[in-house]
Amino acid sequence: MNTQPSRVLSPELWEQFRQGSRIACARLVSLLENRPDLHPEIRHRLFPLQRGAVRIGITGPPGVGKSTVTSALTRQARVAGHTLAVIAVDPTSPFSGGAFLGDRIRMQDHIGDPGVFIRSLASRDGHGGLSPATPYAAEVFDAFGMDWILIETVGVGQAELDVLNCVDIVILVLQPGTGDIIQALKAGIMEAGDIFLINKADQPGVDMVLDSLRFIFQMDAHRPGYVPPPLLTAAAHTGTGMSEVFETVEQVIAKFRREGRLREKRRQRLEQDIREYIQQELWHRYLQLTDAQPEITRVARELTDSGRSPFPYIEQLKSRIRMERNHDQES
Amino acid sequence: MNTQPSRVLSPELWEQFRQGSRIACARLVSLLENRPDLHPEIRHRLFPLQRGAVRIGITGPPGVGKSTVTSALTRQARVAGHTLAVIAVDPTSPFSGGAFLGDRIRMQDHIGDPGVFIRSLASRDGHGGLSPATPYAAEVFDAFGMDWILIETVGVGQAELDVLNCVDIVILVLQPGTGDIIQALKAGIMEAGDIFLINKADQPGVDMVLDSLRFIFQMDAHRPGYVPPPLLTAAAHTGTGMSEVFETVEQVIAKFRREGRLREKRRQRLEQDIREYIQQELWHRYLQLTDAQPEITRVARELTDSGRSPFPYIEQLKSRIRMERNHDQES
Repeated sequence: MNTQPSRVLSPELWEQFRQGSRIACARLVSLLENRPDLHPEIRHRLFPLQRGAVRIGITGPPGVGKSTVTSALTRQARVAGHTLAVIAVDPTSPFSGGAFLGDRIRMQDHIGDPGVFIRSLASRDGHGGLSPATPYAAEVFDAFGMDWILIETVGVGQAELDVLNCVDIVILVLQPGTGDIIQALKAGIMEAGDIFLINKADQPGVDMVLDSLRFIFQMDAHRPGYVPPPLLTAAAHTGTGMSEVFETVEQVIAKFRREGRLREKRRQRLEQDIREYIQQELWHRYLQLTDAQPEITRVARELTDSGRSPFPYIEQLKSRIRMERNHDQES
Repeated sequence: MNTQPSRVLSPELWEQFRQGSRIACARLVSLLENRPDLHPEIRHRLFPLQRGAVRIGITGPPGVGKSTVTSALTRQARVAGHTLAVIAVDPTSPFSGGAFLGDRIRMQDHIGDPGVFIRSLASRDGHGGLSPATPYAAEVFDAFGMDWILIETVGVGQAELDVLNCVDIVILVLQPGTGDIIQALKAGIMEAGDIFLINKADQPGVDMVLDSLRFIFQMDAHRPGYVPPPLLTAAAHTGTGMSEVFETVEQVIAKFRREGRLREKRRQRLEQDIREYIQQELWHRYLQLTDAQPEITRVARELTDSGRSPFPYIEQLKSRIRMERNHDQES
């Protein structure tokens, strides 16, 4: 790294983290959430500590009981001896705070269990999207030694799509009644489910939703090698069916590991990551060299008023800089 | 522009477009949807033709009757002499095609009316997001001479958030029952409504949803100069209340114009647009100079296998190029 290590990240903090201090772990997650400038330094130091924890996304429309499923799955995984981190997306909107706090209360069963680490992250811009710190928080928990990292979304909007990009396995939770299926289809999250779980299976209408899902899976049956995803029912609030859910998650993890899919997803995330750092750097350097930021704002105002095309100006901006391969510093 | 004009964009096509050919108009929208390489050329030529049509987003949770509202509002606007384009987002998922075609059928009332242009655009990646061509299609319809451009979303996921960035005014449609309010809050679209419309107001539960919304608006009452947004009820399928909706839209447009908000939104969109073109250009040139694309893929694989930190490699990638202010070509 070119930059001086930050003073906030003291050797003591890292030492405590390595020795298993939950306070140090929480501190690193908070720093990732609040100090984007420290991302490279923290992440650089986390990499050698990571041991390949599995990231499991728990998603689905609102009201299907995702928090209850998360809590019940946590219980099963603990019985089997796994350690877990649970990352829950909380919208920042003051209106909805109450409802989400209520959901979180169920997770209190696990407070005091040193094998479980629960953390809420504020949603991006209050728009329901995942916090940009979510994948980095998962890296902290991986380095901290957790076996599983559960990431639970709020159920509407951007988070459902974001989560697909940062997890290894997606559990799509639905409930009896077909309304949610249509909604999941519309949101484009249907194709992303690696495991389908009909929660609240003690309510009427389970057969109908199972039939609908089987019909939807059947539409892909002609594809060579297609295997429909596991389709399970449970009543997470009583725990009914949750041991089967846990076993299925274990089987899917084993299968994905065997097929190299876990590794491939990690590679894709890393590649995307590298690309984004370079794109940010290029834009940052462009603005530094050209002082274009205030000018773009001013020209955009002039163009808006005059109704002229921005494209001659865009061409001019493009020609402002020269980019050359740097032969001196090349390795 | 530096590039040769494309042959697809013949002088005849532009001449026909200027003379009001609907076929030419549809052709330009299709080219924007399918040929990203032609975006700069088409958009450059559209700019001087645009006359500042108002873009109205119609959004809200699924099932509230957004298509019916769109159709009823179109009818009202036509009676008042406005010309309109309606852009509807259609998910590409084959499963849900049927339902949306059904919605679209209502718009058939307006087929054959030369003052209305209806166009569906496929959603991005089938994920419910707006097609990237949506704002550009709006530019075509503006240049074609339409007064209003209605943009109707599907109701779940990314499109709701995307649409906020590309319209001047948002009509947030809800229905009796408070479930949708929670959903709209969670998705972060609640704050974006410039007009709140409770559709299906002939169903029970209207007072409760009105009370809830007033309660939510009240939470902002302490903010200096805060005025709660207009809150209307209608039954779009019979047309009840829709003339009030139309009048309110006219009033809000007049107010936003007076306050300079329409211009400010246009400026923001243009500025964002300019920035994105430059960022794309920088990345494109970087890849050309460094041949980094295949290498990044390969290194990401090696790093994934070894578990080493990517940050030394990121630093190396950053140092690969030199960027200099181009004093020769500066204007």
